[in-house]
Amino acid sequence: MTAVEYPLLATRLTARYGMDVPIVLAPMNQVSDARLAQAVTNAGGLGFLGGGYGDEAWLERELSRLAGDDAVGCGFITWRLADRPQLLDLVLDHHPAAVILSFGDPRPLAEKVHAAGVPVWCQVCDLEQARQAMDAGADVIVAQGGESGGHGTAARSTLTLVPEVVDLVHGRAPGTLVVAAGGIADGRGLAASLCLGADGVLVGTRFWAAEEAPTAPEARARAIAAGCGDTVRSTVYDVVREYDWQASYDARMLRNDFTSRWHGSEDELRSRLAEAQSDVRTATADGDFSVANVFIGEGIGLVHDIAPAAAILHQMATSASEILGRLGSADR
Amino acid sequence: MTAVEYPLLATRLTARYGMDVPIVLAPMNQVSDARLAQAVTNAGGLGFLGGGYGDEAWLERELSRLAGDDAVGCGFITWRLADRPQLLDLVLDHHPAAVILSFGDPRPLAEKVHAAGVPVWCQVCDLEQARQAMDAGADVIVAQGGESGGHGTAARSTLTLVPEVVDLVHGRAPGTLVVAAGGIADGRGLAASLCLGADGVLVGTRFWAAEEAPTAPEARARAIAAGCGDTVRSTVYDVVREYDWQASYDARMLRNDFTSRWHGSEDELRSRLAEAQSDVRTATADGDFSVANVFIGEGIGLVHDIAPAAAILHQMATSASEILGRLGSADR
Repeated sequence: MTAVEYPLLATRLTARYGMDVPIVLAPMNQVSDARLAQAVTNAGGLGFLGGGYGDEAWLERELSRLAGDDAVGCGFITWRLADRPQLLDLVLDHHPAAVILSFGDPRPLAEKVHAAGVPVWCQVCDLEQARQAMDAGADVIVAQGGESGGHGTAARSTLTLVPEVVDLVHGRAPGTLVVAAGGIADGRGLAASLCLGADGVLVGTRFWAAEEAPTAPEARARAIAAGCGDTVRSTVYDVVREYDWQASYDARMLRNDFTSRWHGSEDELRSRLAEAQSDVRTATADGDFSVANVFIGEGIGLVHDIAPAAAILHQMATSASEILGRLGSADR
Repeated sequence: MTAVEYPLLATRLTARYGMDVPIVLAPMNQVSDARLAQAVTNAGGLGFLGGGYGDEAWLERELSRLAGDDAVGCGFITWRLADRPQLLDLVLDHHPAAVILSFGDPRPLAEKVHAAGVPVWCQVCDLEQARQAMDAGADVIVAQGGESGGHGTAARSTLTLVPEVVDLVHGRAPGTLVVAAGGIADGRGLAASLCLGADGVLVGTRFWAAEEAPTAPEARARAIAAGCGDTVRSTVYDVVREYDWQASYDARMLRNDFTSRWHGSEDELRSRLAEAQSDVRTATADGDFSVANVFIGEGIGLVHDIAPAAAILHQMATSASEILGRLGSADR
């Protein structure tokens, strides 16, 4: 594939990062591994490892699996990485394409990333975080609406957040690029995001259902069968995992028996924590996703099959190109 | 203005309803009056009266103010209209361009509207409601995400709901048009909605801030000063007004002292209802919108001025045309 194949999808992002299409793999915690990230990069997008909470053994293994010449970045949960600075060193030693910092003040870490000559991407859920990202000198701001899977806030949606961030950045840091995230799972979402002023899109859920993703078959079957409205934003699994998320954050996940039982009854869940932890542990080991967790975004209703990452990327690019070409022509 | 002015915005909706641009005024309860609706229609869009809960005196007055030859429709809250069938007769006698039915089973009323030779538009918040709309023989389905102001559900957002409704309709009722609603306040949102497969957009919040809208100056000043994240979905004013909304619905409104005090404390609010009702009544009369209600959508963060409805419509159309033309050309 060459950039000439999708001329309508050339953006500042593709130019700056040597991509053929402005599609970025979301750094899904331990789901976006070396295999999936390389597949997205090799297909003409940009892959990111999901460093998430920072598991050193996982990171070392996935970094060692990367071929040295593939452009792949790495994402982290900022507040967690702040306690594990050695993990950032580990990643920077591998010359990542970029580091995505999400959830927390990016400024102290951004300085270190920049000092290593690596671009800083900051994922933000609202305009206040976008201002903080600009203060951190972010090269790219990922504007993530509440449609997205996993952690974030429900306060804003992609359709309104992206243009507001674009306007904010345009006034203050016009060289900073904006990438749209949350609810983008097909070519329509990609084309729409470019109309909103984004330089590209960050895609999680659609690639979660890629052949290369290390997602459990039972979880995939459940997610593919799910439709619209089968996701919920909740903190129940954070309670179970005893993760210290700020109260402003929750996460979008597939509805299941566990969320139906405990969402809205978090205090009771805390009072029966050991039992719930044991249930979730057993269910995860058994691949029973009526109790185990599947973080997934609202875009799952647009995902109807498992396909290779390259096929997903090309289908999105072909569809978006067709839409933009057709709508941009008065002869349609 | 002629359709030739915006050739890239010609859709099945503009063709079927004789519009120049695919922009529809949301039937905001008693805000979308004859003056505002006519202004939108005369500028090349399609205006709707906000029949809302069904105030007979208001409806009679606004209907009488319509010039007979202007294409203007009327919207109602379905579950409320079901108890007041004479209001539908009143509207149908005026040969509206269409009737929008929102919130409730549209089937019994749709039959009557169709029998009068008037198109039925059904506003839906999820796919189940979209199926019900198709059962009702809807001519147009308005797919409304949780970004929208006023009533609805937070379950879905515009970016994912619209393409899912488009796919559903395409398979079962391909002659039914889909209009996107929720969070669309500028040309970027219009262009993005067309990419998602919508035949047009329904716009509330932006026209709420039109010069012609009968909105209180104090409310406008507060809304224009508001930014992203200054809205909240809540039921507090439904509690105060003792409206019998189903539990699945809430409404998006401007955050103020009243929502900060009572949102999340609805049981306590019910126990002190008379006092709260008196407070809201007084505040509304005084134009004190720190306590009185302003229903407004998430798009308010994209609204920075009060302008005539025609200027708003032309600006949206010009911007959307520029975006689609630019993104659809490889020479950009």
